[in-house]
Amino acid sequence: MKIGVINVTAPHEKRVAITPDATKKLKKLGFDVIVASGAGREAYYTDQAYESAGASIASSDAEVLSQADMIALVHDLTPDQISQLSAGKIVVGMLDPYRNDNLDAYAKQGVTVYAMELLPRTLSRAQNMDVLSSQANLAGYKAVLMAANEYVRPFPMFMTSAGTVKPAKVVILGVGVAGLQAIATAKRLGAVVEASDLRPSVREQVESVGGKWLDVPMSDEEKEKAKATGGYAWTPSEQYMKDQAIVVDKAVSNADIVITTAQIPGRNAPRLIHKATIDKMKAGSVIIDMAASTGGNVEGNVSGETVMTDNGVRIIGAANIPALLAAQSSDLYANNLVNFITTFLDAEQVKAGGAPKLIVDMNDEIQGALAVTHDGQVRLQKR
Amino acid sequence: MKIGVINVTAPHEKRVAITPDATKKLKKLGFDVIVASGAGREAYYTDQAYESAGASIASSDAEVLSQADMIALVHDLTPDQISQLSAGKIVVGMLDPYRNDNLDAYAKQGVTVYAMELLPRTLSRAQNMDVLSSQANLAGYKAVLMAANEYVRPFPMFMTSAGTVKPAKVVILGVGVAGLQAIATAKRLGAVVEASDLRPSVREQVESVGGKWLDVPMSDEEKEKAKATGGYAWTPSEQYMKDQAIVVDKAVSNADIVITTAQIPGRNAPRLIHKATIDKMKAGSVIIDMAASTGGNVEGNVSGETVMTDNGVRIIGAANIPALLAAQSSDLYANNLVNFITTFLDAEQVKAGGAPKLIVDMNDEIQGALAVTHDGQVRLQKR
Repeated sequence: MKIGVINVTAPHEKRVAITPDATKKLKKLGFDVIVASGAGREAYYTDQAYESAGASIASSDAEVLSQADMIALVHDLTPDQISQLSAGKIVVGMLDPYRNDNLDAYAKQGVTVYAMELLPRTLSRAQNMDVLSSQANLAGYKAVLMAANEYVRPFPMFMTSAGTVKPAKVVILGVGVAGLQAIATAKRLGAVVEASDLRPSVREQVESVGGKWLDVPMSDEEKEKAKATGGYAWTPSEQYMKDQAIVVDKAVSNADIVITTAQIPGRNAPRLIHKATIDKMKAGSVIIDMAASTGGNVEGNVSGETVMTDNGVRIIGAANIPALLAAQSSDLYANNLVNFITTFLDAEQVKAGGAPKLIVDMNDEIQGALAVTHDGQVRLQKR
Repeated sequence: MKIGVINVTAPHEKRVAITPDATKKLKKLGFDVIVASGAGREAYYTDQAYESAGASIASSDAEVLSQADMIALVHDLTPDQISQLSAGKIVVGMLDPYRNDNLDAYAKQGVTVYAMELLPRTLSRAQNMDVLSSQANLAGYKAVLMAANEYVRPFPMFMTSAGTVKPAKVVILGVGVAGLQAIATAKRLGAVVEASDLRPSVREQVESVGGKWLDVPMSDEEKEKAKATGGYAWTPSEQYMKDQAIVVDKAVSNADIVITTAQIPGRNAPRLIHKATIDKMKAGSVIIDMAASTGGNVEGNVSGETVMTDNGVRIIGAANIPALLAAQSSDLYANNLVNFITTFLDAEQVKAGGAPKLIVDMNDEIQGALAVTHDGQVRLQKR
């Protein structure tokens, strides 16, 4: 069975789905790996590195699409590429399933397609396949680096004979995997960090990496409600939302650096920062909007661009941060894929040795959750 | 007495010589401050901020040159600007004195010129005027940020469910103020840091900020020699230089990030890294040459540009790193200047209050050391 890797074409993308290291792991499992020439170039992986790892190099993407049994992708194929696929092939990637217009085409071709974003995050055996988490972790780190590199002052405090340099004030909005890593990285660099999230339950995590929790007053009833659900499924009251907006407005107004990370799967990003707040910020401040590709958390953001406001604040609409650490983000992504590919293996058969089969099984709880097309049908329930 | 501030014209420059904060300090000492409109713009200081601090805003640089008694500069004036100065004016700045072609012109105009780089660094009362130190400190920090932002992997170790990310290997060559701050910053970010310098005496400093000293074998005789001079005036043997080159070649070959900081005042930078070493580095590695503006420590560097080698190594010829932190570097530079300006004050007169005079005094040990032209003469001894 052959696993194929092609060149990415999406704008801002530099990652590759399978790295030389992952190639070795797949070979060890008994698979063949076919890589289109140049597929790893932007992530600093040469054809030669793939060959040394045991892959065969194809002269074109089309050759890979024709020969491979499973195509490992970063993003989606183009409609033209989809039309080249024969029935029974398998496609795996980050396919943005709820906003994907190609699902009917895949179904028509009889291709089985898995969208990695649909992984059930509560399943502990699936944690090592969690692409959102592996990429968000790196993105949270990198967002701080970008901010620190753009900012016109240093992050840490300096005591010098020419005067004391004050530490930068950083505000992180949204404390998921990316936000938590951003807090930790900004603290590493010596900044003073504050964070906010609609879930009061993440306060402890914020404090555990050295951040200050932006506290919002809660009624006793709300405290009970938030506690009962662990905070995660908690629906805050309108008053709480208003109070939080006031707290965030004040913190952001005084911040040197703001990083926003709030994304909702399959929907547009929520608006967290409005122009009225940005207008109060100091010249030279930097905002990184990590949700820019889905509309953004920050008023005035443009995906993939840096916008300078009239009062000297730069809003960076970060379109694809993981791609900026392409070598590393590809490594972790490829590991996620290899782990997912193991769900296609029959344990008995692996024990017996020899070339393994890719067993498509909609009853497997992971495969079943990730499959968006199978057997000529679109399986995804639109939201 | 009026102190004047003009727009910078040097390429890559964004700093301003006197900030609004420094304006307040000068006003408190009894001076007037005149600022050409827009002079602080690139450092995020508006005309309005200067006015609030008590400065008057001039509509042009020429107006400042005509009205001010002392011109505070970041870099040099142009020949045309120098020709506009009347006799008796004072000019202060980072004037690159040993490579400055304007000294005769200044002398001819009867202008007294002070080059801040000539500060005697052994004088403890002059430490707060040390522009090389204040700017190098920030540059060392910023060089690491630039490297981390360019690098295709993270600096710190990450333990994730998709695999462990190894920490980056950073090598710092030259452990002065910039090198030491670079070591400290790279350590903050979680990298593994090694450092080398021709002076074995800095080993302790390297280790005190968490760096690993790249040890070079020394004969007993050499150890004695190095110890006797505190290492600073030590002239290493040819054998030591060769041994060090081997140690550096090995460390750099294996490094992900290399930052070189070796500059010799008034001369071209020494060559520390040759192509043969760079050829052995991994694709995706980053070299920051902080000495690029004086020829560079790294073979193949181009000042102000990023060069990609055939084997995928980026060499960043950093032309003016302090300017990339313009708001902060201007603050510290301006503090240095304000401290220097106090050497022109008469203590009795300050006590009595009222507008102070700028007393030019070649017998003052600081003024005497910094003055490159005075009384129609060039005072600088060429090297």
